[in-house]
Amino acid sequence: MAEPQQELDQAQQAHQTLQEVSDALDSGRFVHVRRQLQDMEPEDIAHLLEASPRKSRDVLWQLTDPEDYGEILDELNEDVKDALVSQMPPEKLVEATEGMDTDDLAYVLRSLPDDVSKEILGQMDIADRHRVETALAYPEDTAGGIMNTDVTTIRGDVELDVVLRYLRMKGELPDVTDALYVIDEDSRLIGHLSLTTLITTQPDIQVCDVMDDADEAIPVDASDSDVASLFERRDWVSAPVVDENQHLVGRITIDDVVDIIREDAEHSMMSLAGMDDDEDTFAPVFQSTKRRSVWLGANVLAALAAASVSNMFEATLEQMAAIAVLMTIVPSMGGVAGNQTVALVIRGLALGHIGDSNKKELLLKEAAIGFLNGLVWACIIGGIVVVWKDDWLLGGIISAAMLTNLIVAGIAGVTIPIFLKKMNIDPALAGGMALTTITDVIGLSVFLGLATIFI
Amino acid sequence: MAEPQQELDQAQQAHQTLQEVSDALDSGRFVHVRRQLQDMEPEDIAHLLEASPRKSRDVLWQLTDPEDYGEILDELNEDVKDALVSQMPPEKLVEATEGMDTDDLAYVLRSLPDDVSKEILGQMDIADRHRVETALAYPEDTAGGIMNTDVTTIRGDVELDVVLRYLRMKGELPDVTDALYVIDEDSRLIGHLSLTTLITTQPDIQVCDVMDDADEAIPVDASDSDVASLFERRDWVSAPVVDENQHLVGRITIDDVVDIIREDAEHSMMSLAGMDDDEDTFAPVFQSTKRRSVWLGANVLAALAAASVSNMFEATLEQMAAIAVLMTIVPSMGGVAGNQTVALVIRGLALGHIGDSNKKELLLKEAAIGFLNGLVWACIIGGIVVVWKDDWLLGGIISAAMLTNLIVAGIAGVTIPIFLKKMNIDPALAGGMALTTITDVIGLSVFLGLATIFI
Repeated sequence: MAEPQQELDQAQQAHQTLQEVSDALDSGRFVHVRRQLQDMEPEDIAHLLEASPRKSRDVLWQLTDPEDYGEILDELNEDVKDALVSQMPPEKLVEATEGMDTDDLAYVLRSLPDDVSKEILGQMDIADRHRVETALAYPEDTAGGIMNTDVTTIRGDVELDVVLRYLRMKGELPDVTDALYVIDEDSRLIGHLSLTTLITTQPDIQVCDVMDDADEAIPVDASDSDVASLFERRDWVSAPVVDENQHLVGRITIDDVVDIIREDAEHSMMSLAGMDDDEDTFAPVFQSTKRRSVWLGANVLAALAAASVSNMFEATLEQMAAIAVLMTIVPSMGGVAGNQTVALVIRGLALGHIGDSNKKELLLKEAAIGFLNGLVWACIIGGIVVVWKDDWLLGGIISAAMLTNLIVAGIAGVTIPIFLKKMNIDPALAGGMALTTITDVIGLSVFLGLATIFI
Repeated sequence: MAEPQQELDQAQQAHQTLQEVSDALDSGRFVHVRRQLQDMEPEDIAHLLEASPRKSRDVLWQLTDPEDYGEILDELNEDVKDALVSQMPPEKLVEATEGMDTDDLAYVLRSLPDDVSKEILGQMDIADRHRVETALAYPEDTAGGIMNTDVTTIRGDVELDVVLRYLRMKGELPDVTDALYVIDEDSRLIGHLSLTTLITTQPDIQVCDVMDDADEAIPVDASDSDVASLFERRDWVSAPVVDENQHLVGRITIDDVVDIIREDAEHSMMSLAGMDDDEDTFAPVFQSTKRRSVWLGANVLAALAAASVSNMFEATLEQMAAIAVLMTIVPSMGGVAGNQTVALVIRGLALGHIGDSNKKELLLKEAAIGFLNGLVWACIIGGIVVVWKDDWLLGGIISAAMLTNLIVAGIAGVTIPIFLKKMNIDPALAGGMALTTITDVIGLSVFLGLATIFI
């Protein structure tokens, strides 16, 4: 009973470790920390590094056993990895990358300066180097970029007993192997034999009689998001990757797909707030300032656009300060309502739920929701204004502006992300800002325009 | 070559199917649609249903083979599932749920009215009913709630050859089986034998000599997020679940964990925008209006708080309309900068990177970024205002307000989510709104306050 408890406490109480380690670092008990690190799994050390402020992180990295470097680097967030790798001398890096999986090594090499990665490749034996170079030849965000080349292949015309004897001779199988791939004499993939079939079937049966067809193979140039959605829908654990001639070139395993799924989902959240999803929680101040500044710059333009609208109505504002007091309410409600729609549409686009066949229905639905919520809040806000400012006209004007702006917000919330996607601009990155600009400008124009006409 | 292409096209061009199906529905070619549905995998039908407007969805459901209902229901988004299930008569539901996995069936039963789920349970044979009732006894968001009870167990004191003969007799293994669980005479979990070990080891060796220890077992009351983070870090495909006496009660497989990972990540994005992550893209208008209204109501309070601040400075606003024109810029920049920090902190909290040991560093870092970006944008906006309004004093005032508000945004962006989490309020749900209220109120107060004092 003690052991599983301990296992889970490690996840829940990673912060206790973190606290202990940082206390030990503060008091200079480096030997103690080194011993603690030796008892930890590489993935837990990666987590500890990500959760550590930069100064402690560098000390921790020094105290970590270099033999674990490869596995730890593989688990780290991109920005954290880059920072650590950039400080390591090339010969240490060569040492660290020994024994990494080809896909993981290719992933690390991509982020290194060319001369360093060449040096590392130069130190590898020819077979390994060839494998890594094959992986590097494919773009990072394709099936080829995330696949592993350690496939176990068998022939279709042998009995299962022969396969079992072959595997016992081999003595081990790559991690996350749930199937063996069946190829013909030209190395073309013709099917796969799952391990469960292998062990539940009589040994005198031929492979080709119990194997599954090769129609699950992933083309090497498929995008990583498509691969992730296939894995998710088909509940796969691993899948073979083939080139255009149906030659088996590698396989993709669920552990790498899980990373893609999490990154894709995080990307939407971080992008909507104008953040890079690779951003390290403890990134250096100047680096973060520079990155975030770009987004703030875009917002300055949006804010100035809104200010220019109010500027056109300066005379009205001068006449009646109550209008200035109330003018922020309509844009604010429009922005919030519109961003609800934007979030729904961005998720729908990411999941592949929205396309030409149903975007009209979606638009009508969101416009209707905007109309209904517009009615509700027009009445409430209008009522508040009538009571607060004792001015029926002003209450009517703000109600009309609210209703208009919430309908606009619903329509813009659907059309902006779909339009951006069509223009090949990331809707998560630009959608929220574009929406807010429109609801600000329309909200202010309608409210101040009506006020100018009627007051 | 044709086959894998076809497979991937299915993912990329789900919309072509959708378009075809909706065309066929429009022209009343129901037989054609029924035939198309028969050729599709249950998970693809689920995707099609989610991507269909409500009217077509109901027709599609009628045209689907009831034998696939169970598997399809299991793949559907919660809101879509609830809507379809609520229309089905209980006897159809009983039929539909035949042959579902226990964990999936328990998941569906939870969302049904009590009398319907009792009727379904009553129709099952005793062994199955007992299994489902066991699963239902655990809360939905715990290991017990997501586990499957179809475990394959073996004893430790037998030779691998005996295990292989036993498995061949059994003839099949549950989906996503990558290990057999080894139990002692009291059904206590003592270890697991991976299939890869089973097939690469000589058959005359005993199970207990090659099995892995039981320290990977998950306590049945562990939270689903902890389970997901363990799977993600350890690259597991499946893991055993034990009760407090170390008795094996079930196992969790990666396909269910992938759903949790996606839902958790989506939850942050949707919540930040004030949306429920179960929301169906094509939800009924009234249901969506009501749900979103709550969030808009919260924003009304925030907008009124900001308006009350400007109201206190009505005299100043009356005196100089330029102040009203410019007063939206400072809150807008503060809101955007603060929400960048909020997104970073919410992700950090979700990943377990932020705790007592490092929150001070994080606060200092974000305050420093706020200070630096505040300086940059204070100069730029101040400059623009000086040129635009030809007023040095006004430029100075907006600069000072901008700098203050961006520092406040950095500090509030860190403290609000951490505080909410401590209060057991979901930081993703309330964090952005609370932050915006603070940056609006502070931004307006400082800008209008300084203007009142100096102009």
